[in-house]
Amino acid sequence: MPELRKDPVLGRWIIIAKNRGKRPTDFPIEDSPVTGGFCPLCPGNESFTPPEVLSFSGGDDPSNQSGWQVRVVPNKFPALVIEGDLAKEGIGLYDKMNGIGAHEVIVESPNHDESFSDLPLERMCLVFQAYRERILDLEKDSRFKYVMVFKNHGQAAGASLEHSHSQLIALPIVPRMIVSELQGAESYYNYKERCIYCDIIRQEINQDERVVCQNELFITIMPFAPRTPFEMWILPKNHSSSYRRQSDAELFSLAELVSRSLKMLTTCIPNVPYNFVLHTGPLRTDGLLHFHYHFEIVPKLTSIAGFEWGSGFYINPMPPEEAAAFLRESLEKAEEGETDEKNTTG
Amino acid sequence: MPELRKDPVLGRWIIIAKNRGKRPTDFPIEDSPVTGGFCPLCPGNESFTPPEVLSFSGGDDPSNQSGWQVRVVPNKFPALVIEGDLAKEGIGLYDKMNGIGAHEVIVESPNHDESFSDLPLERMCLVFQAYRERILDLEKDSRFKYVMVFKNHGQAAGASLEHSHSQLIALPIVPRMIVSELQGAESYYNYKERCIYCDIIRQEINQDERVVCQNELFITIMPFAPRTPFEMWILPKNHSSSYRRQSDAELFSLAELVSRSLKMLTTCIPNVPYNFVLHTGPLRTDGLLHFHYHFEIVPKLTSIAGFEWGSGFYINPMPPEEAAAFLRESLEKAEEGETDEKNTTG
Repeated sequence: MPELRKDPVLGRWIIIAKNRGKRPTDFPIEDSPVTGGFCPLCPGNESFTPPEVLSFSGGDDPSNQSGWQVRVVPNKFPALVIEGDLAKEGIGLYDKMNGIGAHEVIVESPNHDESFSDLPLERMCLVFQAYRERILDLEKDSRFKYVMVFKNHGQAAGASLEHSHSQLIALPIVPRMIVSELQGAESYYNYKERCIYCDIIRQEINQDERVVCQNELFITIMPFAPRTPFEMWILPKNHSSSYRRQSDAELFSLAELVSRSLKMLTTCIPNVPYNFVLHTGPLRTDGLLHFHYHFEIVPKLTSIAGFEWGSGFYINPMPPEEAAAFLRESLEKAEEGETDEKNTTG
Repeated sequence: MPELRKDPVLGRWIIIAKNRGKRPTDFPIEDSPVTGGFCPLCPGNESFTPPEVLSFSGGDDPSNQSGWQVRVVPNKFPALVIEGDLAKEGIGLYDKMNGIGAHEVIVESPNHDESFSDLPLERMCLVFQAYRERILDLEKDSRFKYVMVFKNHGQAAGASLEHSHSQLIALPIVPRMIVSELQGAESYYNYKERCIYCDIIRQEINQDERVVCQNELFITIMPFAPRTPFEMWILPKNHSSSYRRQSDAELFSLAELVSRSLKMLTTCIPNVPYNFVLHTGPLRTDGLLHFHYHFEIVPKLTSIAGFEWGSGFYINPMPPEEAAAFLRESLEKAEEGETDEKNTTG
């Protein structure tokens, strides 16, 4: 049984995934790329994953067979397990509980070589709908307080399988990063009676230095104090604290802007590894006036990352205003290129 | 001029090192090892670094020439600059100030190939004395609130030069990680009237599951909720909030235990990359009853590190009790090996 343990000074919870028990020599110092070979996420190999919990298909295909466009399955090597009770326990000044939770894999495409940013909008929208449906379902389990949805793209960002996928982890605690955001945003709200993220969106649109792109319902900005070069936040323009309350139309608009933002990023920096993380309100909270759900894209570029990771202190060699300008430029060039091509071939 | 910027939600300060301005194509996706070639930290090449601010030598050698055993120089490519005023400024809801600070390199050995963990105790003690002397000197500058001392060992942990060195950064703010530790420890003290770290040391000695090693004055433990496999904390057994108040004798004892702990780690996992970070009280604070200075060693081993880095949530596949047992075992084997060798050759 994995364990959740709390750092007594910082209040930070971590998962000890005992069932993944390893010897010291099992940790590779140099990562070797995982490419080629058998892929358990490809169509036809459905029997090599646990039975699916959700799938979207174009037709009437029976479940656990080929024909799906997006498929959600429990992680075969879960960090947390679904059966059992929390058994909260104190050991002297330490706190722990059983590692109860859900750990699922969202297979984003039936095509092994198709990357997330290249998905057609209709299919990217299915991925965002799958996130929503799974959160709504897991919310029914009263043991869970938060569902964390994230995507690791590229090996440097932690991806262990080539086939494009995201993951979700349902947790009996709210992660520290989200607790800190909730507290910071609440303290601003108590003082100003305004949502800090709504204020950020207004200021960014007025200043127009760090806006990457926007559509009617969503906006992508580089944050004022980014941890890494090209860090981006994607926020709904209309205040909303809960991702799971978004309509299909809103999710389609989100897919359009995420797709455009990632295309700008990968045009500018081909093969960039990144983490894509949903920050939303805790389960069974709704209509929080002070919190605003959003996605964060954190590229993994700087070789000094090791330092920040150990120390919690960030040095970023690229001002976000410059990074945003680079992205907008690269989009213009790409569009000119397309126009040139059309003119030449037309 | 670099800038310090504050995230308005989290209160996290980051450095935008504008003077390191780069184009998107300047970020390597795959790190290539930096080995061989000219080394600016080697004896004889003193003129290739800025003039030294401190050096310890065995004899009466004049400064900025060979003969030193430990040498401190300003970083040639500093993340912060020493000249100027803070010019604190608000831009709408954002806060920033000039990136004023010191960024120095502590060259730990005159020998290019000698690693930190292999330094003889007398010379490792000089490194710890150099940390202390530089903190005491930088404290005189009233613009600075904290001196961060850290070491990146191995490329995966962010080291950019082979020659063994640590770094220090004097900051006009207290980093968020330290602020959180101070707050957590103070809230415990207000409730219990005891230092939480003193309580941790007592409980660890009693439980004897996560103690790696100890001597008269210091103890190395694996924390109860470690972020990574083999994370270690080294704490003074006698309560002390300020590293800079440690005597030469105390620093010698610290060197002995750090040396032993790192030898155990590198015996168990050869070539392990790690970050080594001093957590001490802010400048011009003394005798804090609730805070306890310590060093944290954070190995960079798990390939899932990318995820934790982007999300702030940690999954650790190795319980600290098992990791501590592995280290103690590997020490026993190494000692048996030495005894066998002596018996065979003796």
